[in-house]
Amino acid sequence: MNIRTIDWKNDKVRIIDQTKLPQRLVYLNIGRVEDLWQAIKTMQVRGAPALGAAAALGVYLGIKDYSGADWLGFSRKLKVVAKHIASSRPTARNLFWGIEMACAVALKNKKQPVSRIKQLILDEGKKIMQEDSFSCRKIGYYGAKLLKHNSNVLTICNAGILATIDYGTALGVVYSACSQGKKIKVFSCETRPLLQGSRLSTWELHNKGVDVTMIADNTAALLMIQGKVDLVIAGADRIAANGDTANKIGTMNLAILCKYHKIPFYIAAPGSTFDLRIKTGKAIKIEMRKAQEVVRILFKKSIAPVGAKVINPAFDVTAHELISAIITDKGIIRPPYVKNISRVFKGE
Amino acid sequence: MNIRTIDWKNDKVRIIDQTKLPQRLVYLNIGRVEDLWQAIKTMQVRGAPALGAAAALGVYLGIKDYSGADWLGFSRKLKVVAKHIASSRPTARNLFWGIEMACAVALKNKKQPVSRIKQLILDEGKKIMQEDSFSCRKIGYYGAKLLKHNSNVLTICNAGILATIDYGTALGVVYSACSQGKKIKVFSCETRPLLQGSRLSTWELHNKGVDVTMIADNTAALLMIQGKVDLVIAGADRIAANGDTANKIGTMNLAILCKYHKIPFYIAAPGSTFDLRIKTGKAIKIEMRKAQEVVRILFKKSIAPVGAKVINPAFDVTAHELISAIITDKGIIRPPYVKNISRVFKGE
Repeated sequence: MNIRTIDWKNDKVRIIDQTKLPQRLVYLNIGRVEDLWQAIKTMQVRGAPALGAAAALGVYLGIKDYSGADWLGFSRKLKVVAKHIASSRPTARNLFWGIEMACAVALKNKKQPVSRIKQLILDEGKKIMQEDSFSCRKIGYYGAKLLKHNSNVLTICNAGILATIDYGTALGVVYSACSQGKKIKVFSCETRPLLQGSRLSTWELHNKGVDVTMIADNTAALLMIQGKVDLVIAGADRIAANGDTANKIGTMNLAILCKYHKIPFYIAAPGSTFDLRIKTGKAIKIEMRKAQEVVRILFKKSIAPVGAKVINPAFDVTAHELISAIITDKGIIRPPYVKNISRVFKGE
Repeated sequence: MNIRTIDWKNDKVRIIDQTKLPQRLVYLNIGRVEDLWQAIKTMQVRGAPALGAAAALGVYLGIKDYSGADWLGFSRKLKVVAKHIASSRPTARNLFWGIEMACAVALKNKKQPVSRIKQLILDEGKKIMQEDSFSCRKIGYYGAKLLKHNSNVLTICNAGILATIDYGTALGVVYSACSQGKKIKVFSCETRPLLQGSRLSTWELHNKGVDVTMIADNTAALLMIQGKVDLVIAGADRIAANGDTANKIGTMNLAILCKYHKIPFYIAAPGSTFDLRIKTGKAIKIEMRKAQEVVRILFKKSIAPVGAKVINPAFDVTAHELISAIITDKGIIRPPYVKNISRVFKGE
């Protein structure tokens, strides 16, 4: 089965509604920016690279019906739309990057007629999708070198097809290795609270014919000490200039377990996830989500007493010293990160 | 509210059905050993110390209707019953200890009439309950010294009232510190797959008026790096002679996180949890449970694709070098464990 997480079809953003998986594969066609904001907020569409494309296409949805023909009015509208989309979720760098790319295209072409600028913004959204598709394949190409025949990979959350356009970052590495004929076994941490590991990664790996076993997040250390895990690969939501990496809550746990068990821990992410304006992970804002996600699993029956206090951060930040290497679309970056990230992305 | 996890009432074992919490507080009155076996297997009663008492009372349920008056026939029946109860769950040392205590009483009094031996076995079960009640209070007394006013404690699974007769081991330490007027804040890891943390620990701490916040297991490392956790206390299912400790899956994760963040990690357990016949944790059999517990949260809607492979170990073994100290009813044991455990329990 070919899966495409996000697309532009019939003047609408078409996304897979990821809250319905694994039970049902449902597509949503979204024509209004408010609905896209809601889809991002409720994680019907999620995953940093997919959010980059969603955000850029969202900018287009927000300005396409602007009726004026003046740049000044249009640019004011553009700012309002950009700010609105940016308010949906705070952590993933790509969301802001997607908005910035769309706005930059507009600004660069401000002398053009508004109708033309609108078209250029839409083209930018489409280009971001196309580039993500290539970018993930490059990540897969570079990362596959780290995987041997019969490697056992452990991953968390979903950094696969469903987090990108159509290939994946961490899981893209797995798909790439498999396409080279390597036999790869994947352990998918279920990833509480929202279970992206069991619901999404297990689903897509299964669909792609990859040998996948799901585990409760608590089981990772046991598998490691039993020698069943050769390496861990996770995606990223935002990477600071020193390599500190925000990703799904629980990622730091895995990185620390890897250090203790002397297992390589890799991050896989495209250039658009790097935020070189921030020096360290301390500057990354961690999204705090509703208690309901923890208390009611998939919003059904409560698993805790009424009124129980809950803390529900959606992300954590893995310190760069815990990361063996970062697999990017520009190649594999190893420590020292400040120097090597800068060299790759600033050409220094 | 006074809670008593297991009791002997009207010739039956009365237990709280822990699978019904936190929604409903339901008591079960069990008069047949087969039903008790089932209650242990399905974790209607669980927690190593509670299982010790349940096992001894189970032996009585199994032999009380033996109609013969001869020691030989009775002892054969006793063996069958003991073997049956021992087959319910493999990891917790206390379960086997409870059976051994009941059988030892019978053997020691084999010259007595069978009716008298039966009564002595029942008395032994009652004595185990009484002693657990004292034992947990001693653990609480010793352990409370490790907690300061305003200490933030993180725990996993349920090593509280519901894992013992009426006080708890790890949570007994918290209750004891609170009774001394110390203000203690507890973070309760939900403890996937069966959610003993969110369902049971959060429920009993809340009932006892202790400030408790539940978290997804993945959140532990973030709280630690944010400086919100002063110490971790977990219970134990079996402790080897060198201090290696089997406890709920995920306990080892926490111990490794503590080592990385330089946070003390304590185990709290009564003497009956120590298994000095085994030198290290490598000899501890880890119970593997059904995939359904992971795939269907509380046996409701599936959270994974149909046919997804799952590994569901119920326990892991925390290496002794990760344990700062073991809080027991004989006092606090610190490394080197081989020497100090032996000194405390063998008087060497």
